[in-house]
Amino acid sequence: MSAPPPAKPVVVLRPAPQRTDRIFTPATQELLRDRFTVVDLEEDPSEAALEEVLPDAFAIVGQPDLPAQRLARGGRLRALLNVEGNFFPNVDYTTCFERGIHVLGCGPAYAQAVAEYSLGLALDLARGISREDRAFRAGQERYVSDSNADAVLLQGSDVGLVGFGNLGRSLNRLLAPFRPTIRVYDPWLPPGVLHEHGVLPATLDETLSRSRFVFVLATVTDESRHLIGARELELLPDGARLVLVSRASVVDYPALFSHVASRRLLAGIDVWPDEPVPADDPARDLEGLVLSAHRAGGIPEAFQNIGDMVLDDLTLIAQGLPPVRMQAAARELVGRYRNRPVT
Amino acid sequence: MSAPPPAKPVVVLRPAPQRTDRIFTPATQELLRDRFTVVDLEEDPSEAALEEVLPDAFAIVGQPDLPAQRLARGGRLRALLNVEGNFFPNVDYTTCFERGIHVLGCGPAYAQAVAEYSLGLALDLARGISREDRAFRAGQERYVSDSNADAVLLQGSDVGLVGFGNLGRSLNRLLAPFRPTIRVYDPWLPPGVLHEHGVLPATLDETLSRSRFVFVLATVTDESRHLIGARELELLPDGARLVLVSRASVVDYPALFSHVASRRLLAGIDVWPDEPVPADDPARDLEGLVLSAHRAGGIPEAFQNIGDMVLDDLTLIAQGLPPVRMQAAARELVGRYRNRPVT
Amino acid sequence: MSAPPPAKPVVVLRPAPQRTDRIFTPATQELLRDRFTVVDLEEDPSEAALEEVLPDAFAIVGQPDLPAQRLARGGRLRALLNVEGNFFPNVDYTTCFERGIHVLGCGPAYAQAVAEYSLGLALDLARGISREDRAFRAGQERYVSDSNADAVLLQGSDVGLVGFGNLGRSLNRLLAPFRPTIRVYDPWLPPGVLHEHGVLPATLDETLSRSRFVFVLATVTDESRHLIGARELELLPDGARLVLVSRASVVDYPALFSHVASRRLLAGIDVWPDEPVPADDPARDLEGLVLSAHRAGGIPEAFQNIGDMVLDDLTLIAQGLPPVRMQAAARELVGRYRNRPVT
Amino acid sequence: MSAPPPAKPVVVLRPAPQRTDRIFTPATQELLRDRFTVVDLEEDPSEAALEEVLPDAFAIVGQPDLPAQRLARGGRLRALLNVEGNFFPNVDYTTCFERGIHVLGCGPAYAQAVAEYSLGLALDLARGISREDRAFRAGQERYVSDSNADAVLLQGSDVGLVGFGNLGRSLNRLLAPFRPTIRVYDPWLPPGVLHEHGVLPATLDETLSRSRFVFVLATVTDESRHLIGARELELLPDGARLVLVSRASVVDYPALFSHVASRRLLAGIDVWPDEPVPADDPARDLEGLVLSAHRAGGIPEAFQNIGDMVLDDLTLIAQGLPPVRMQAAARELVGRYRNRPVT
Repeated sequence: MSAPPPAKPVVVLRPAPQRTDRIFTPATQELLRDRFTVVDLEEDPSEAALEEVLPDAFAIVGQPDLPAQRLARGGRLRALLNVEGNFFPNVDYTTCFERGIHVLGCGPAYAQAVAEYSLGLALDLARGISREDRAFRAGQERYVSDSNADAVLLQGSDVGLVGFGNLGRSLNRLLAPFRPTIRVYDPWLPPGVLHEHGVLPATLDETLSRSRFVFVLATVTDESRHLIGARELELLPDGARLVLVSRASVVDYPALFSHVASRRLLAGIDVWPDEPVPADDPARDLEGLVLSAHRAGGIPEAFQNIGDMVLDDLTLIAQGLPPVRMQAAARELVGRYRNRPVT
Repeated sequence: MSAPPPAKPVVVLRPAPQRTDRIFTPATQELLRDRFTVVDLEEDPSEAALEEVLPDAFAIVGQPDLPAQRLARGGRLRALLNVEGNFFPNVDYTTCFERGIHVLGCGPAYAQAVAEYSLGLALDLARGISREDRAFRAGQERYVSDSNADAVLLQGSDVGLVGFGNLGRSLNRLLAPFRPTIRVYDPWLPPGVLHEHGVLPATLDETLSRSRFVFVLATVTDESRHLIGARELELLPDGARLVLVSRASVVDYPALFSHVASRRLLAGIDVWPDEPVPADDPARDLEGLVLSAHRAGGIPEAFQNIGDMVLDDLTLIAQGLPPVRMQAAARELVGRYRNRPVT
Repeated sequence: MSAPPPAKPVVVLRPAPQRTDRIFTPATQELLRDRFTVVDLEEDPSEAALEEVLPDAFAIVGQPDLPAQRLARGGRLRALLNVEGNFFPNVDYTTCFERGIHVLGCGPAYAQAVAEYSLGLALDLARGISREDRAFRAGQERYVSDSNADAVLLQGSDVGLVGFGNLGRSLNRLLAPFRPTIRVYDPWLPPGVLHEHGVLPATLDETLSRSRFVFVLATVTDESRHLIGARELELLPDGARLVLVSRASVVDYPALFSHVASRRLLAGIDVWPDEPVPADDPARDLEGLVLSAHRAGGIPEAFQNIGDMVLDDLTLIAQGLPPVRMQAAARELVGRYRNRPVT
Repeated sequence: MSAPPPAKPVVVLRPAPQRTDRIFTPATQELLRDRFTVVDLEEDPSEAALEEVLPDAFAIVGQPDLPAQRLARGGRLRALLNVEGNFFPNVDYTTCFERGIHVLGCGPAYAQAVAEYSLGLALDLARGISREDRAFRAGQERYVSDSNADAVLLQGSDVGLVGFGNLGRSLNRLLAPFRPTIRVYDPWLPPGVLHEHGVLPATLDETLSRSRFVFVLATVTDESRHLIGARELELLPDGARLVLVSRASVVDYPALFSHVASRRLLAGIDVWPDEPVPADDPARDLEGLVLSAHRAGGIPEAFQNIGDMVLDDLTLIAQGLPPVRMQAAARELVGRYRNRPVT
């Protein structure tokens, strides 16, 4: 029989591999401690420590293992707040849904950062910004129009989005003043949703074959592995620019590199089949690529955004209101994701 | 006594240093020849050839010398269409204005290209895109957040624009979905114009001292030489990003490089005091810079945009309507510009 | 022991007081019947008929009574789709949540219609459109500026929104090009959500006292009854325009009418304490009002929008995907609404 | 031989039929008097008074007769600022252009007011706002959907604009969040200009036949009289809504009223062939009309906008800079307008 709960709801912090001081500014942390009894397990992330606090816990901020029998011990649990970005199969989600425990993800915290980065990569590919910076540093710059033969405007262009979740929607907003024609392939969304956002529903083939700029934003599920394989890459028009910021397994990299090596395609790549990338990976010398080391989302403002969202949603839940900032896990999808955790 | 004019108005092409086939697509050129009697002097840009066609000329596309006595020989002249980008003091503009000869510039043709490029540079500076591409190629990439310590969002940031002509307005449109606070310094514009565009009028000092991102878009006049000198650069907040895409003489480069070398500022630079830049220029090795060789405007679509504008405005003028696409030279300003022609 | 289910999932239609042919176009209905076995109870909405189909039902479109014991008989039930607009306490929502039955509302289907209507009322109040139409018909029109003494622009004005759910967000989008300063009072939302939408979080008093245009969009809960009472109405600045399109009980009508009668405020009113409004209600003769009979949302396109959303979400759920178009009932809120059903 | 000019440039005010205190707020007037020697002829608008001040005048604010011989006496004249809205043939514009005298119109001051009013009329026609307000006052209101059979959304609809000057552009901005398909007929503009604004160039017939909402914004020239006659009105689809806010002579009124009487079209009309409209005009009793007495532009904020623009542009011109807020008269068009002055 458990002791009476503390006067303030108990929030357990166990954010690893995320870090408490990265997601909570001092001000946010102070507000959190004002409103809740915070039990910080960052220094002692042992299972024993978690087990001990579980009976009192109102919410857990982090992604510890929570199988059914452990959840059973957390009788006061009202919310799990994942602050890493992906849902892993280490939680008995079915039990959570049955008990009305909120299962929340921090994906939306990264959306603006990824959208801005994706647009930055696209503009780099459109105009050769990093390529010509390198040439300049090597004393081989070419002036005015001499290095602009393949430069294109984003304005008025055909754009394809593969995936239209948080990232796609944020990017869509940033693209609006360029007045592009945007085709979207997202098998989880009916056309009506896409029309509401002013974009055109399309098949994957149509999205690829008609777009000068393609952004791959899809989350990985079993079905999306090698979604963009050798056949699909052939569909892209000559001179197309591909921006890859979601998950590496969506794309066939060797096939992509072959198109880039032959100057048919240009690509900005932020995710890689193996990270770190092997030292002798041929991509490192490939012209036509903008190389990026999984940097699209993890910036200080995005991390602090997570902490703000956690504080806001915990506060709402404690008031008997529904959370509104983090993303509620969908019962149907939480088991489908196959994202590899960042290590 | 001159001969009767040809049935169709005579348009003289003498575009150097611009090129006819760069600004006119085959389709545009066909329309031009349909509607006008085109005398193409590209192959023979001699003064004699120009003098010969002048009495019949309805319009001149290009920037030849047109002093008063030569203009006097062009009695049918209705329009001068500058296709290089700058107005030079090689035309007797006063006579043109008195006679109602349209003096038109092609600046608007470049605005979108420069705005997209400026945004691309800003996003590169915000996120270290070209810096990390170089590191990756050197086998020194850092993953996820390790290279993002100085990464910032553009969203919600304070942005300063120095100059609010065609470039500033195009860029302002692209920035809108980032919901920035935009301060503008433009001594040629009253506050009312800026309010209509949703930006805040500000002094130069206020624009610099309160902005995380500063875009220098000012055209050079005598008054704007070294507008942004050592004193002004000190005003910029730590970590500010400066994008320079207008004219080099607006900024004190040595002072700027010193701030970049000390890691206080980051800068994207497209224009240089001397072009080509000397081989041993220290900028070539400076981290914190994105180096660009006067590439912001001169892309194929911008050039073709010029040809389209020329065709449209010639057609309107020939119909007795005012031109609407190119920019009419302002009597008050045409003598003030001090842009060095691109060579 | 129940019979084996039909090959296609069984969807029960029992839309009253909504009507099947109003929400489903023939084309939508055909798609629905293609994908599902449709049992239409519109002609026989008896409890017996419902009971009979319940064991096979995959989803119910409508708002019948579903207490715990009845839900228990619907073992295959996966979704309840409310097509009337409000959640009533005639369903055992707790059981639904425990069993993972989707409880969906059609509120979003009306949002655009209400937002456009609200903007129409605001522009009418800003410019006296219906007032001067009446004057013109009475032969008493006043030309040009003579009837414009109290006319104001929406552009650049201070706007207050009371409530920021679907309606507030749709209206916020329509207001954007007017570049207003928008203050929002919504006690269910943390400031971070409002900042994401580019509006300013505010207290109710601040929202009222600083706004030239106020839109009351709040849903009624126990706490929001007479949210805008006599004291609050005094806070509105002279000449303010109030648009009332949510629920009548939010506002103190006699106090509002007294302000309108004294010409201090103008108001557009779509909802009324008693509907139909008594024949001798003084509002009928009041200048300064735009009178409207609960017309903001119920237009043909909104109704068909409901049918489209129902079809889309049923299709997704049948594919094992989460619904995305209708609004999931929040466990915390579904019991709080106090909207009176429309009769 | 004229006396030496005053230390400050002389600005002559002779605004009739406009009024000084309507266009200049006290604050604006104080700034004007600070910067200029103001000679106010509002009380004495005689020709003699004007003649007397003419030799010293730097600028004239108003629309007095200025034939060649009178202009000849204004040797210091640098600007004519029309504050009524239309250019009349009472000025020798040719002389003005030759001498480089700025001829400026105040049309842009009204654009936002007219655009907001036009949108207000369109929303009224879309939803029956004034019609149902009248019904409500007559005790004949119909609740919820009963009066909404012909109600339509503006969102996603086909919109036609006849004319794309200041008004069309302002309206285009307001329409953007409705995501309409906008077709524009404007014979003075090449397609390139329209594409830059994100609208589709179209013939008049196409504009009319494919639009649910049509806004007639064209200025009258000889060619535009009865631009929209009986034949053109037949092209409009059943149920189309026509908003008329420019000049009455563009449209064939009897033909329009016949379509409205038969319930085929709805119309919002702000301008009339004869103003005031005869007491027995059948339009006064016509359902399907929103009647308005030339009220779209002349509101206090628009008038004050004129004064602000006048002050700003005079200040710029006195500094040797080009005016930027008022609209420069086009040499080619100034003689074409046939607007009847408002009396």
